[in-house]
Amino acid sequence: MGPHPAVAAIRLAVRRVLHDVLNDHPAPEASPHEPPPSPLVLVACSGGADSMALASALAFEAPRLGIRAGGVTVDHGLQPGSDLRAAEVTLRLRELGLDPVESTAVTVGREGGPEAAARDARYSALDAAAERQGAAAVLLGHTRDDQAETVLLGLARGSGIRSLSGMAAVSGGPGAARRYRRPFLQLDRQTARKACMVQSLPVWDDPHNADPAYTRSRLRHEGLPALEKALGKGVVEALARTAQLSRDDADALDAWAGQAESSVRDAAGLLECAKLYALPPAVRRRILRRAAIEAGAPAGSLFARHIEEVDRLITGWRGQGVINLPGKVVAQRQGGRLVIRQG
Amino acid sequence: MGPHPAVAAIRLAVRRVLHDVLNDHPAPEASPHEPPPSPLVLVACSGGADSMALASALAFEAPRLGIRAGGVTVDHGLQPGSDLRAAEVTLRLRELGLDPVESTAVTVGREGGPEAAARDARYSALDAAAERQGAAAVLLGHTRDDQAETVLLGLARGSGIRSLSGMAAVSGGPGAARRYRRPFLQLDRQTARKACMVQSLPVWDDPHNADPAYTRSRLRHEGLPALEKALGKGVVEALARTAQLSRDDADALDAWAGQAESSVRDAAGLLECAKLYALPPAVRRRILRRAAIEAGAPAGSLFARHIEEVDRLITGWRGQGVINLPGKVVAQRQGGRLVIRQG
Repeated sequence: MGPHPAVAAIRLAVRRVLHDVLNDHPAPEASPHEPPPSPLVLVACSGGADSMALASALAFEAPRLGIRAGGVTVDHGLQPGSDLRAAEVTLRLRELGLDPVESTAVTVGREGGPEAAARDARYSALDAAAERQGAAAVLLGHTRDDQAETVLLGLARGSGIRSLSGMAAVSGGPGAARRYRRPFLQLDRQTARKACMVQSLPVWDDPHNADPAYTRSRLRHEGLPALEKALGKGVVEALARTAQLSRDDADALDAWAGQAESSVRDAAGLLECAKLYALPPAVRRRILRRAAIEAGAPAGSLFARHIEEVDRLITGWRGQGVINLPGKVVAQRQGGRLVIRQG
Repeated sequence: MGPHPAVAAIRLAVRRVLHDVLNDHPAPEASPHEPPPSPLVLVACSGGADSMALASALAFEAPRLGIRAGGVTVDHGLQPGSDLRAAEVTLRLRELGLDPVESTAVTVGREGGPEAAARDARYSALDAAAERQGAAAVLLGHTRDDQAETVLLGLARGSGIRSLSGMAAVSGGPGAARRYRRPFLQLDRQTARKACMVQSLPVWDDPHNADPAYTRSRLRHEGLPALEKALGKGVVEALARTAQLSRDDADALDAWAGQAESSVRDAAGLLECAKLYALPPAVRRRILRRAAIEAGAPAGSLFARHIEEVDRLITGWRGQGVINLPGKVVAQRQGGRLVIRQG
């Protein structure tokens, strides 16, 4: 008898990703004196169901592929006893057979709100752990449900398809373009929970996940269920598919804008309005956005309405004055050229 | 004292669109014997607040621009007394000074579900009325709130950014590429209601709009409010902006795919797999979709998962057999060529 279907599903998802990791990190030529070192893959584990399921699947699959499996848990220090919690998670990871296992404590700042600050601190710690351990990859337990929530959060920003593209299956860290892998991005949360249950893995429910002070929590417990009630049960899957399609579309348009940019600059490197005008709006606005960021506007503060206003210097020219953008960047039209620079 | 801000807002929205209509339909050379005929603009009016507000603004603005304003109401025959309702709406439109005004009865079929069938019947009737009256344009009362709902309905399909692009501000009918105009697409429903109230215009609340049997109604009364509660009040605006950005992006990518298509076909007109492989996935999948539709697959039944399966003949070739698509279309790889045809 094979494993429970939920366990089979999480293992298959992890196995596929481990194959990709091996493809990205081919074993070095074996030396006559020592065997080639096995690559190390870490799992980032909060102790919650998603990442405990991920840890269990990694512990099972990695040895079969000649991969060393380790784990890291981040103590955010946001709740009393979080250090004990972290110690408990490391214990459980060791019980699964992972080695090395480490707990790393971070200090969460305030920048960008509580969720963004915690995320920034967490990824810094994971990057540091990966560097320290020489890990080939770090696995993250985000599920299809997390992806759906991320798409809705992006939708609420109204800033276009890049923000609808959710989390990538593979993404980078400093100095490691493909460090993070999300094996469960096409797997639903229910399957991860079920896999923990049938493997008798104790899991921890982060109280933050049910705290209505957090946007994501409100979305999870109220927004998405209401949307499912109105639109049908396929909403989570549809949102996750939207993420993938939007990501591919955004990548293609960014590539187009990157190529077109050089063709719309004059010999002095200034943007020519007439050439910009001839481009499709979607491409033109991406070039304008790139130019604003290059001039020092912070990407996170640059909204669609800013770019629309700059775009009207091209498409609705009626002698407008200087347009102020975030980061003290200014845009203005001068003699058929668009100048975007520090003001 | 000027008009109430809500009335000023609806009039401004209509005035802008009427200017566009005049730009699209320049007055013919005046004959020495008779004045040039004034263009006619019709409003499609259900008697609800949005379209009554639209009718009132059209009645006010059109004469000032030398435009004749008329109206048409569609009797869907779905409720007892709908003919009396239609007669009442025509009366109200005439009271606003619109002329000509007509009521047109339709028979709603069943194809595509009740909402799609009613919409198809309605647009056929509006097209016929526009032809009959020689109208330069037909105004539709869709608001920013309707647009937000349309984006969410598209999101639930999970079929990519074209389905996120909602309703166009300008769209066509048979033989008239820019027949339909939606002046209120950036205006919220509340403003339209307010404008009716302060103008003492009686409005009719279509019971369908509150009937939970309709997806859109569930979305309006439960889904969207829950999403606003979770994500904040800006959701409707963000969804409407997403529609516009997605539309521009989808247009640009469609144009790219249209241009790229000829470059990936061999002398016999067959799609070359190697050349397809070299394209960005977003462009390649659009070419595959176009080819499937050209071969007879109905666009509405062709989902993202179909195209993904065909795409794997290019990106994940391992000797797959024939792939069956809707409309009895088949796709297969043969000697480095992708063949998509009637099976």
